[in-house]
Amino acid sequence: MKNIRVKSPATIANLGCGFDILGLALSEPFDVIGMELLDTRKIEILEITGCDDLSLDPAKNVVGVVLQAMLNRIDDNVGFRVKIEKGIYPGSGIGSSAASAAGATYAANALLENRFSTNELIVFAMEGERLASGTAHADNVAPALMGGITLVRSYDPLDIISIAIPRELFCVVLHPAIEVKTSDARMVLSDKIPLKTAVKQWGNVGGLIAGFYKEDYALIGRSLTDYIVEPVRSILIPRFYELKKVAVDNGALGAGISGSGPSIFALCKGEVSAMRVCNALEMHMRIVGLRGKTYVSAINREGVSVYQEERVMYEVL
Amino acid sequence: MKNIRVKSPATIANLGCGFDILGLALSEPFDVIGMELLDTRKIEILEITGCDDLSLDPAKNVVGVVLQAMLNRIDDNVGFRVKIEKGIYPGSGIGSSAASAAGATYAANALLENRFSTNELIVFAMEGERLASGTAHADNVAPALMGGITLVRSYDPLDIISIAIPRELFCVVLHPAIEVKTSDARMVLSDKIPLKTAVKQWGNVGGLIAGFYKEDYALIGRSLTDYIVEPVRSILIPRFYELKKVAVDNGALGAGISGSGPSIFALCKGEVSAMRVCNALEMHMRIVGLRGKTYVSAINREGVSVYQEERVMYEVL
Repeated sequence: MKNIRVKSPATIANLGCGFDILGLALSEPFDVIGMELLDTRKIEILEITGCDDLSLDPAKNVVGVVLQAMLNRIDDNVGFRVKIEKGIYPGSGIGSSAASAAGATYAANALLENRFSTNELIVFAMEGERLASGTAHADNVAPALMGGITLVRSYDPLDIISIAIPRELFCVVLHPAIEVKTSDARMVLSDKIPLKTAVKQWGNVGGLIAGFYKEDYALIGRSLTDYIVEPVRSILIPRFYELKKVAVDNGALGAGISGSGPSIFALCKGEVSAMRVCNALEMHMRIVGLRGKTYVSAINREGVSVYQEERVMYEVL
Repeated sequence: MKNIRVKSPATIANLGCGFDILGLALSEPFDVIGMELLDTRKIEILEITGCDDLSLDPAKNVVGVVLQAMLNRIDDNVGFRVKIEKGIYPGSGIGSSAASAAGATYAANALLENRFSTNELIVFAMEGERLASGTAHADNVAPALMGGITLVRSYDPLDIISIAIPRELFCVVLHPAIEVKTSDARMVLSDKIPLKTAVKQWGNVGGLIAGFYKEDYALIGRSLTDYIVEPVRSILIPRFYELKKVAVDNGALGAGISGSGPSIFALCKGEVSAMRVCNALEMHMRIVGLRGKTYVSAINREGVSVYQEERVMYEVL
């Protein structure tokens, strides 16, 4: 195989209480990575569509960085020529860089006859995250590559666990048209937290994981609450609590900040409920004059996958 | 019904990473509470066997306190006469006070024709914990009453979740002949903890709950690690890390401090493995001259239950 084209999904990191450990893959939106295997050791980013702000220089692009990390591990006389179709806005907080990084590792690995394990691909993709945000976190790249809901139990050694996916779980994402830098979002966090608050947080982490396995949607809803990160990061997102209330009042199980924001996610039981929540959020945005984009998405169970279709790119925000 | 006799199990609170939220009920050891319904509003503790240090004064005994809390909620002209057979040493860290408190609420509720829910019984039993340790915690009384593995997701409102029990899970408990007061064990803890450490801890909480549901014994083992409490509380338990190493070297999935100590618990896959770990611990104790008592126990799935048999009391430690 000399060519491949893959789709790589947006992801919601943290999932409320699970700061830095939990992540979930969405069916929409997604990036598409086209890749051609070359017979010289070079990386070439031919084209990026759907976004004007990303660099074609492989050293300054997450895709280039992860491909270089892969090349550094092999001696073969190979290289990669890449086309990136961004379906996920950079800076949206739904794993835009992670999707490109994960997609690139998957595509390259397929062209290299799958010589690397998924765990190794995650480690490569984390290098892209280091470029994008300064931290090589795994809570977006893991679900992007593995699909479903993932738990980063440990970084040293890297230990990623697939969590059961409740059958009727749906997700609504609202991406407000503002920018929050992951590095800024990390800066507002305190180095130390009260033990009592930490206990409440890990009570919820336990409840959320149990809720996923029991398919107990009410338990999932009441376990989402984040006592540590949301209270400070929400300051960076105008009208956050108002939008969260609209989601919950219209039947969402719970809602929170996706990753470092500004996107807001809501979990719902069933697609009908998710559509209702999404409509209510859009209505509210119109009333208060907030611009942004919404998605209703099932859980993406497979993660990055081969993609042959053409697609209509999303309109610019 | 005028009389009842129940057995109420020892419990392991915290279970490694799950400080203040996780608990597990053991099959052994257990307390036995005999109770007679009276037709006047009084509480009488007739006899306590198996332990010399507990008060017969209902105001100073966890059983008396929880029964008074129950009486305060009803207008009936009733009271309780109680005999307590302690099978669990007070101060052992395996829920001695919780077993008596939980057993008393269960017995009284049966005599009152089950007018209270299990959740209400837990709240009554927590009053016994307040007397015993100064804090009305639920992580021992919940598994004692409900059996199995429980998660105290939240105290306000009280929200207790039953967690799946892996079929081959066994537990070894070593109770060294030293005393650690719960109040002292709480005092050594810091009010604030580093966010980075908290993230590792809730990664493990998530991994442990997932491990229980997946019946993934290796995951259970590597998720047990407690980064917050064990490093400080272990100082109060001579040879703790040495004993933990003996357990793990002999096949335990992992080990930790039971509740506030001094008991040490180890989780094992299968009874044979648990016996091997127990034998190795006993051998090591003999070599280093450590006195104490060991138990090998299956997980108690039912919690407090009616008990008719006579039993031979355990020898004094």
